Amino acid sequence: LGRFKGKVMEIAKQTKKIGEDDPRRIVHAIKVGLALTFVSLFYYIRPLYDGFGQAGMWAILTVVVVFEFTVGGTLSKSINRGCATLIAGALGVGAEYLANLCGEGQAFVLGVLVFILAAIATFTRFFPKVKQRYDYGVTIFILTFSLVAVSGSQATTNLQIAYQRLSTILIGGATCMIISIFICPVWAGQDLHNLITGNVEKLATFLEGFGGELFSSPGDESSVVQCKDDKEKSYLQIYKSVLNSKATEESLANFAWWEIGHGGFKFHHPWKQYLKIGVLVRDCACHIEVLSRCINTKPQVASEFQLKIQSTCKNMSIECSKGLKELSFAVKNMTFPSPAAKIHIQNSAATADGFKNILENSSLSTKTDLQEVMPVLVTASILIDIIRCVEEISVSVDE
Amino acid sequence: LGRFKGKVMEIAKQTKKIGEDDPRRIVHAIKVGLALTFVSLFYYIRPLYDGFGQAGMWAILTVVVVFEFTVGGTLSKSINRGCATLIAGALGVGAEYLANLCGEGQAFVLGVLVFILAAIATFTRFFPKVKQRYDYGVTIFILTFSLVAVSGSQATTNLQIAYQRLSTILIGGATCMIISIFICPVWAGQDLHNLITGNVEKLATFLEGFGGELFSSPGDESSVVQCKDDKEKSYLQIYKSVLNSKATEESLANFAWWEIGHGGFKFHHPWKQYLKIGVLVRDCACHIEVLSRCINTKPQVASEFQLKIQSTCKNMSIECSKGLKELSFAVKNMTFPSPAAKIHIQNSAATADGFKNILENSSLSTKTDLQEVMPVLVTASILIDIIRCVEEISVSVDE
Repeated sequence: LGRFKGKVMEIAKQTKKIGEDDPRRIVHAIKVGLALTFVSLFYYIRPLYDGFGQAGMWAILTVVVVFEFTVGGTLSKSINRGCATLIAGALGVGAEYLANLCGEGQAFVLGVLVFILAAIATFTRFFPKVKQRYDYGVTIFILTFSLVAVSGSQATTNLQIAYQRLSTILIGGATCMIISIFICPVWAGQDLHNLITGNVEKLATFLEGFGGELFSSPGDESSVVQCKDDKEKSYLQIYKSVLNSKATEESLANFAWWEIGHGGFKFHHPWKQYLKIGVLVRDCACHIEVLSRCINTKPQVASEFQLKIQSTCKNMSIECSKGLKELSFAVKNMTFPSPAAKIHIQNSAATADGFKNILENSSLSTKTDLQEVMPVLVTASILIDIIRCVEEISVSVDE
Repeated sequence: LGRFKGKVMEIAKQTKKIGEDDPRRIVHAIKVGLALTFVSLFYYIRPLYDGFGQAGMWAILTVVVVFEFTVGGTLSKSINRGCATLIAGALGVGAEYLANLCGEGQAFVLGVLVFILAAIATFTRFFPKVKQRYDYGVTIFILTFSLVAVSGSQATTNLQIAYQRLSTILIGGATCMIISIFICPVWAGQDLHNLITGNVEKLATFLEGFGGELFSSPGDESSVVQCKDDKEKSYLQIYKSVLNSKATEESLANFAWWEIGHGGFKFHHPWKQYLKIGVLVRDCACHIEVLSRCINTKPQVASEFQLKIQSTCKNMSIECSKGLKELSFAVKNMTFPSPAAKIHIQNSAATADGFKNILENSSLSTKTDLQEVMPVLVTASILIDIIRCVEEISVSVDE
C-alpha cells in the first residue's frame, strides 16, 4: 500500500511539473473538453438529433481526431479532413454509379476499385512532400472512399446520409478551428520563433560560461571546482538539447505553414528563414560539443604563452557570446540586428586575427611545450570555427 | 500542355525512384488494399451484413487508421485501439448508468462527465511516457467514451450496438495484424538494426576517405581535384544523415518494443542497446562534422614535421575506419566483435600515443611554423577524440 501511495505521489508531482512547465497545456486540455461538450449538444438536444441522426457521431470523431495543441496543427488537420472527405465522397459516388452499370458484378467491381485506390493512395504517402503536408488527408481519403463506395451497395438514401455526414464533419472542424484560434491560441509560428531564439541564447550562455572557465587560472582550483558543480548543468549540458531540436523545428515549421497571419507576422510566416537559422545553430552546437571536451584537458601549469592564448580565447568566446545575445534579441523583437551585434562579432573576428599574430610572433623555447600547448591551440581553432558559424548566423538573421 | 506533360513525367520518375529505393513500399500499398478489400466483405455479402449492420463501417475505419508500415507500428496501434475501446466502453456504460439515476439532469451530468474525462485524458498526453507509447490509445479512449456516453442518451439497444462495434473493431485489428505479420513483414527491429549498422559503416567510409585524402600529398594536386569531384558526395556528405537520424531511431525503437520475437532476435529486442550505440555514433558524427572542415585548410607546402604528423593522422583514420567496419560487421551478424576489431582499435590508439611521442621529440625551427602546423595538430587532436568515441562504441557493441 505504501508503495502504491508513493507512486501516486510521484505521478502527482510529475503532473504539477508538466502543468507548470507550460500552463498552456492545461488550457489546451480544457479547450478539448469544451469543444467535445459543445459538439455533443447535437446528440443531447432532441430537435438537432432528429435533424442529423446518427451522423452527429461524425462531429465527435472529427473533434477528437483533429484538435491539436497548436493552431497550425488544427488548421492543417481540419482542412485536410474537409478536402479529403469532399473529393473522396465525390469519387465514391462515381464509383458506385459505375458499379451499378455493371449490374450483377457490382460487388466485384467495387471491391477492385477499393483495392486499386487504397493501394495507390497508400503509396503516395511515401512521397516526401505528401508525407510532410497531406499525410492525414490521404488517410481520410482512403477511409471516406471505402465507406462511400462500399455502403452504397446497401443503403438507398445515400445522398442524404452523405449530406448529413459532410455537414457534421464541417461543424466539428469549424468548432475546433474557432476554439483553437480564438481561445488562448497556441501559434506554432510563435513556438518556432521562441525555440530558435532560445537555442541561440543557449549557445551564447555556453560560450559565456566557457569563457569564464578559461579565465579562472588553474591556480585557484578550489573556486573552479565549487562553481563547476553548480554550473555543470546550467551551461555545459544546456546546449545538448539544441543538437536534437531538428524534428521539433521541422514539425513546427510545417504547422506554421498552415497558419494565418498572427502576432508580429503579417501574412507570411518566414518559416524557411527560421529553418535555415536552425541548421546553422545546430552546426554551431556541434562545434560546441567538441569544444566542451577541451575543458577537461586543461594543462596543470600554464606558461606565459599559454596564458596569452587563453586570454585570447576568453575574449573570442565572450565577444562571440555577446554577439549571439544581440542576435537572439534582434530575432526576438523581429528587428534588424542592432549595430552592437555587428561590433561584437567584428571584435571576436579581430581577436581571432590577433591570435594568428600571436602565433607568428612567438616561438617555443622547450621541446615539451608543443604537447602542452596543443589543447589550447585546438580550443582556439575550434573557437575560430565557431566565430565563422556565428558570422553565418548573423547573415541569416538579416533575412 | 507541354508543361503539364513534363510534370507528369517528373512525377512518374519520382514514383519509380521511391519504389526502387525500397520495394517493400509497393508491397505495403498492396497489403493495405488487400486488408481493406477483405474487410469490406462484411458489407458486400448479405448474410454478414445482416449480422453486423452499419457496424461493418468500424472494421474499415480500424483498418485504414491502424495499418502502419512496420509490424511494430501496426501492433502498437491495434493493441492500443483494442484496449482503449474496451476500457472506454465500460466507463461509458458506467457513466450512462450514473446519468440515468439522475433522471431529469441526465444530459447535464453526461456533458460534465465528458468534459472532465476529455480534459484529463488530453492532459495525460503531455506525459512523455504516455506520449511515447500510448498516445493513440488515449485518443481512442476519448473518442469511444464520448460516443458511448453520448449515444446512450438516445439509443435503446445499446449493448447490442456495443457488441457489434467491438467485434468489428477486433476483426479489423486482427486482419491488420495477421496481414502485416505474415505477408512480407517489415520489422521495425530489423530496420533499426540496419539503420545503426548503416550509420556505423558511414562513419567508417568517411574516415577511410579522409585518410586517403590526407595521404595524397599536396604535390599531385591534379589527381586530388579529380577524385574529389567523385568522392565529395560519396563520403564527405554521407555522414550528415547520421547526425539527423535521432528521430527515426527513436520511433523505430519504440515500435520495436511492441514487436514479438522475429529473425535473429528471440524474445526481447535489445532496442535500448541500439539507442545507446546510436547516441555514441551521433556524437562521433559530430566530431567528424568538425573534422570535415579541416580538409579545406591543408597547408600549401608541407614540412617534414607536417608530413610525419599527416602520415600518423592517416594511420589513425584508416585503422579507426577498419575497426568501425569490423564492429558494424559484428552488429550486422549479431556476433561478438571479432578480435580483428579490437586489434584495429588498439592500433589506432597506439598510433595516437605515437603521435604524442612525435610531439615530444620534435622541436620547431622557425617562427612561422606554428601557424602552419596548427591545422594538422587540430586534425590529429580531433582524430584522437574520435578514437575515444570509437572505443566507447566498441564497448557498447559488446553489450
